[in-house]
Amino acid sequence: MPELRRDPVTGQSVVIAESRSQRPGAFEAVHDDLAVEDCPFCEGSEHLTPGEVAALRYDGTEVDAPGWQVRVVPNKYPATSLGGDASSHVDASSSAGSDWFVAEPAIGSHEVIIESPRHIRSVSELGVAELADAFRMYAGRLAHHRRSGRARYAMVFKNVGSGAGASMPHTHSQLITLPSVPAPVARELRGSLEFYANNGRCVYCELIDRERGDCARVVAESKWYVAICPFASRFPYEVWLLPRNHASSYETSTSCQSGAAASLTHRVLRGVERLLGRPDYNYVIHTAPFDTETLDHYHWRLELIPRLSKIAGFELGAGVYINPVAPETAARQLREVLEPE
Amino acid sequence: MPELRRDPVTGQSVVIAESRSQRPGAFEAVHDDLAVEDCPFCEGSEHLTPGEVAALRYDGTEVDAPGWQVRVVPNKYPATSLGGDASSHVDASSSAGSDWFVAEPAIGSHEVIIESPRHIRSVSELGVAELADAFRMYAGRLAHHRRSGRARYAMVFKNVGSGAGASMPHTHSQLITLPSVPAPVARELRGSLEFYANNGRCVYCELIDRERGDCARVVAESKWYVAICPFASRFPYEVWLLPRNHASSYETSTSCQSGAAASLTHRVLRGVERLLGRPDYNYVIHTAPFDTETLDHYHWRLELIPRLSKIAGFELGAGVYINPVAPETAARQLREVLEPE
Repeated sequence: MPELRRDPVTGQSVVIAESRSQRPGAFEAVHDDLAVEDCPFCEGSEHLTPGEVAALRYDGTEVDAPGWQVRVVPNKYPATSLGGDASSHVDASSSAGSDWFVAEPAIGSHEVIIESPRHIRSVSELGVAELADAFRMYAGRLAHHRRSGRARYAMVFKNVGSGAGASMPHTHSQLITLPSVPAPVARELRGSLEFYANNGRCVYCELIDRERGDCARVVAESKWYVAICPFASRFPYEVWLLPRNHASSYETSTSCQSGAAASLTHRVLRGVERLLGRPDYNYVIHTAPFDTETLDHYHWRLELIPRLSKIAGFELGAGVYINPVAPETAARQLREVLEPE
Repeated sequence: MPELRRDPVTGQSVVIAESRSQRPGAFEAVHDDLAVEDCPFCEGSEHLTPGEVAALRYDGTEVDAPGWQVRVVPNKYPATSLGGDASSHVDASSSAGSDWFVAEPAIGSHEVIIESPRHIRSVSELGVAELADAFRMYAGRLAHHRRSGRARYAMVFKNVGSGAGASMPHTHSQLITLPSVPAPVARELRGSLEFYANNGRCVYCELIDRERGDCARVVAESKWYVAICPFASRFPYEVWLLPRNHASSYETSTSCQSGAAASLTHRVLRGVERLLGRPDYNYVIHTAPFDTETLDHYHWRLELIPRLSKIAGFELGAGVYINPVAPETAARQLREVLEPE
């Protein structure tokens, strides 16, 4: 059973999941050369994954058989787990009653969302309508876990390429639920609550107004969404996609809104790949914790992070990112290569 | 002039340093195959770097000429800078009086500490006495910057291999000074101050006692230092080296203490490299900010981080590290491969 540990001084949370050291490529490069016939995420290889927990399927096809467009399966090497013996794997030195070495079972779900039956690397290779289906699935799975009442927090994230932490080359995202809100997320929530208390307004709504009023860091916008390079970009060509109208939870997006979010993400991602030569990348969806009602002070967003520069000692030690490309430069270059809507 | 920016919501600091996009390998793999004759850090190529600011030299040798053992030069592509026009490069959208988009000049020093005139990759290839000289130089440079009164915070860090963010293969460390204490460091200081207020004791002194009492996570110890795999290790085989006696600032170490820290670091690093096949790695020295007197509640440490697993979307998004190797496992394996003292 994986466990969640907290550093006794900094409060930093980590998941200790020894089962993950068994996964392919745990400590080596991604299997970029994985042949299609060996890929467990390809159509026809459904028997190579744990049984699906959700799928978008053509009428008349069967569970765990071909005929799907988006397929969700439990991660074979999970970082969080719903079952098992909660007391197993507890640190040998944590004595009862001690608040020093706090380890709890990492109770939660860890799912893989396979966005295409085809052996493609990046969701930019999908059609916009296909990516829209994937984005609707993200919302559906988040809504499912919110309803289940068993988790307090969830994040959808994507790793593409070994430099971004992927261990499988076939396009997929992941969803992890946690029993508690991680400290960095809690800090962001407190920051936005404080702004709301002082200004009566969502800090991200204010941010969007300021960025749209100036345009220096705006990459693109559509009727419902805006894409910006954030003022304090940690990474070169980092892009945030935010809904223009206030919304704290991604999973409350309508089908139409999810489709529009996918459309702008697709357009921006194609621009990023054209400009930067198909880099490794991550995207993550920040959404409100499950234990809250709709929040007036928080705003969901998707962060797209091309992995051009490595995270080095200064970033790990001081927690300060060194970014060699100003977001104003990145936004201008991205605007220049963006395809017309 | 590089600038220091703060995210308006999370307070996350970043350095925007566009000059660094000009450095070799800014967005590509390290020049692992860099020929010795092209290496600016090798003895005889002193003219290829900015002029040295400090060096450990044989008697009778001249500045910026051969005959050194450890050499310190300004980083050619600095993340922080002492000179220049402080108002240049200021974000176009930051209007006067706005506390929204806070950018200040990233005033500070960025030095490269070249630990050997020989073209070696890892300080494990140095003799213990040579690494001791390097560790004394780290202390000397930190003490210099503390005395200068121009910086509030400094970190010494090392990147080895492209996966750890190195752009040059010849062994070197770096030192960056900052005009303010980064938020994650300030949080750690607050956490340790709180513990001190409640318990009348340095939290790390308490940690060392608990770890030494149990031994499950102790890798090695010497008269003055102990090496442990921390309870909430973010990375597989992460090792912390801490002084057994209370000390908040690395730079107050005596020559003898620096030498002993180098000796235990050398022993642990050789064990890590034997066990893991010479992985890329970072080490960083956490030391108290310059604007404080000696602190009773804080304790310096060196963190050694082998870079086996990639930092992926969940780590970047939720700030929670997933570690597939429990620190108890890592410490046991490291103990087994450690050379005798």
